[in-house]
Amino acid sequence: MIVDRDRLQQNIAQMQSLADGRGVRLRPHIKTHKCVEIAQLQLAQGALGVTASKVEEALVFIAAGVRSVTVAYPIVDRRKLARLLRGAQAHGTELRVVVDSAAGFEALTRGSQDAGTVVGAFVEVDVGLRRCGLTEHDPQLVPLARAVHENPTTKFMGLLSHAGHAYAASSREEVAAIAAEECQILQRVRQHLEKAGIPVPEVSVGSTPTVLASDSYDGITEIRPGNYVFLDRTPVRLGLATMAQVALSVVSTVVSRNDDFLIIDAGSKVLSSDLGAHGTAGVDGYGLAFTESGEQLQVVRLSEEHGFVARGGADLPIGTRLRIVPNHSCPVVNLADELVVVSDGEVVGRWRVAARGAL
Amino acid sequence: MIVDRDRLQQNIAQMQSLADGRGVRLRPHIKTHKCVEIAQLQLAQGALGVTASKVEEALVFIAAGVRSVTVAYPIVDRRKLARLLRGAQAHGTELRVVVDSAAGFEALTRGSQDAGTVVGAFVEVDVGLRRCGLTEHDPQLVPLARAVHENPTTKFMGLLSHAGHAYAASSREEVAAIAAEECQILQRVRQHLEKAGIPVPEVSVGSTPTVLASDSYDGITEIRPGNYVFLDRTPVRLGLATMAQVALSVVSTVVSRNDDFLIIDAGSKVLSSDLGAHGTAGVDGYGLAFTESGEQLQVVRLSEEHGFVARGGADLPIGTRLRIVPNHSCPVVNLADELVVVSDGEVVGRWRVAARGAL
Repeated sequence: MIVDRDRLQQNIAQMQSLADGRGVRLRPHIKTHKCVEIAQLQLAQGALGVTASKVEEALVFIAAGVRSVTVAYPIVDRRKLARLLRGAQAHGTELRVVVDSAAGFEALTRGSQDAGTVVGAFVEVDVGLRRCGLTEHDPQLVPLARAVHENPTTKFMGLLSHAGHAYAASSREEVAAIAAEECQILQRVRQHLEKAGIPVPEVSVGSTPTVLASDSYDGITEIRPGNYVFLDRTPVRLGLATMAQVALSVVSTVVSRNDDFLIIDAGSKVLSSDLGAHGTAGVDGYGLAFTESGEQLQVVRLSEEHGFVARGGADLPIGTRLRIVPNHSCPVVNLADELVVVSDGEVVGRWRVAARGAL
Repeated sequence: MIVDRDRLQQNIAQMQSLADGRGVRLRPHIKTHKCVEIAQLQLAQGALGVTASKVEEALVFIAAGVRSVTVAYPIVDRRKLARLLRGAQAHGTELRVVVDSAAGFEALTRGSQDAGTVVGAFVEVDVGLRRCGLTEHDPQLVPLARAVHENPTTKFMGLLSHAGHAYAASSREEVAAIAAEECQILQRVRQHLEKAGIPVPEVSVGSTPTVLASDSYDGITEIRPGNYVFLDRTPVRLGLATMAQVALSVVSTVVSRNDDFLIIDAGSKVLSSDLGAHGTAGVDGYGLAFTESGEQLQVVRLSEEHGFVARGGADLPIGTRLRIVPNHSCPVVNLADELVVVSDGEVVGRWRVAARGAL
């Protein structure tokens, strides 16, 4: 698994300058790379902290010295929360979590009381993915925000959302519309809470597609994109990036062939079976294979250890190397032990996927 | 990730007694579990060695002291082959590989010459998966087998096939027909080679479905099933196993919910995005969720860290534990660092997925 360092650095710099230009803070999601070295590059460019999905994942970055970490996932298990709070306390890390239910709030207040600490908490708003978060009109929303605001061991950080349904869009315009709707929903909720006497310090949105497609971040204070460091076929399909910007690829070898297929040594245990993020299926096949001369072939099927590349007239001998651009970089990196870092075709380093398998 | 030790041991014992009863040798594929402890249980029950997919995977089991290892994957990279041969020599392991091309044979003979060793090699036959292997009528088949037979540094082991297309079948009868066809093809190839003066010591077939569905293994000397240790929704769908035999499951927690879905803390980074093996899509959804009282719910969608369980009228509170039976156990285990072993509801051990990520 190859990371092009130059493209990676350019992607990191561009996102930082986009955030700076629009006056929002950047708190990148590290679930894409799970790699301490890349988080350090993001922080060095101006990111003010990181976002993690899971407790064990967050603990890797806390232990690595990241000063501020959001766990953008409802933690309802008390032992997990206790581990997270202990880790943050031991390293003096600023910690923020999310809640979207009374059960989550109860776990959080007990945990923060037991740990003798105050934990920042966002209330998650569902802006259309139908996953976590309360919808705009949910009668529990104001009481939950008020409870977080008033409880002495929790600090209400504001609103957080993830418009992951944007990955299923078919065009940049459609993504931009989803992003605009997300901003509008969050503005309405913010005003609603402020009218109810609950100040909303932060409004935090995630997702690389919506961030790249938006013209303005009206009322947004923080963005949490993750995928932008590497990109993949999905933002290219959505017209939000070009193949030349994609920083992650899988180098594989043709190990067998028959009349229909070139068989390569990268299967679902390397490329994952994802067609896109969140179960979306906007692209054909499981990756786009490039020959050295730039010819493009489709990975049309995967076994665990084998990829089936449609020959499409190509007569490539066994032993040929193909570079595969994956559909979805995030689960692909999670399958690797390390990333081989290249610059100008030379290997310049190896980075461990430190939080791989961390739940 | 939970392994029921009693079910596992029963599955191992049943497959061994099935092999013994039919007079074939059992050489289980360890890509399913990647776990040294499970290989040891299989060997203790009578397996005569193991099968691995990849070189680095094989090296884990060679280092663990398994005496005989087949790498059922075409190795065309000389450095990989050299690593494998060094590992086998260092541990005195009997090693067998597969070839299906002149390029693979050349790599193999060079490698075995360089290592000063004789390597056993199967010629792989494509029995319908359209992946690796030469078809029955391929004009290269006899010359390749002869070359392996006559070369002083390779030893012709016989024929090997994998009827992975059986996973796409819709019934036990269809699987049995594929298995019968596989036997017939291999018999014809064997006779053809023997007429050409090339003795065929072994005829080795793989795949849990075909092995379970077959009434006879006519002319087969060795079976290489892997999935049978755990099983999953696919053999259950094919009528080849019952849910009560499935030894692997994922315990997850409801972390959020909305009108449509219960959101659980197991997504594609735990359950994989596989609908079945080899890209088959015979089951609905990404896993079957069981409540403690045995109620069944479908995991209908996955994000990376979240599963969407269709509520279907169920009103389960946040914090509820659900046990998920995956569609395809093999990629699921590959996502875990360790397996929690239970017996009668008690945790009795933790086994490391030692060859996880090994390519």
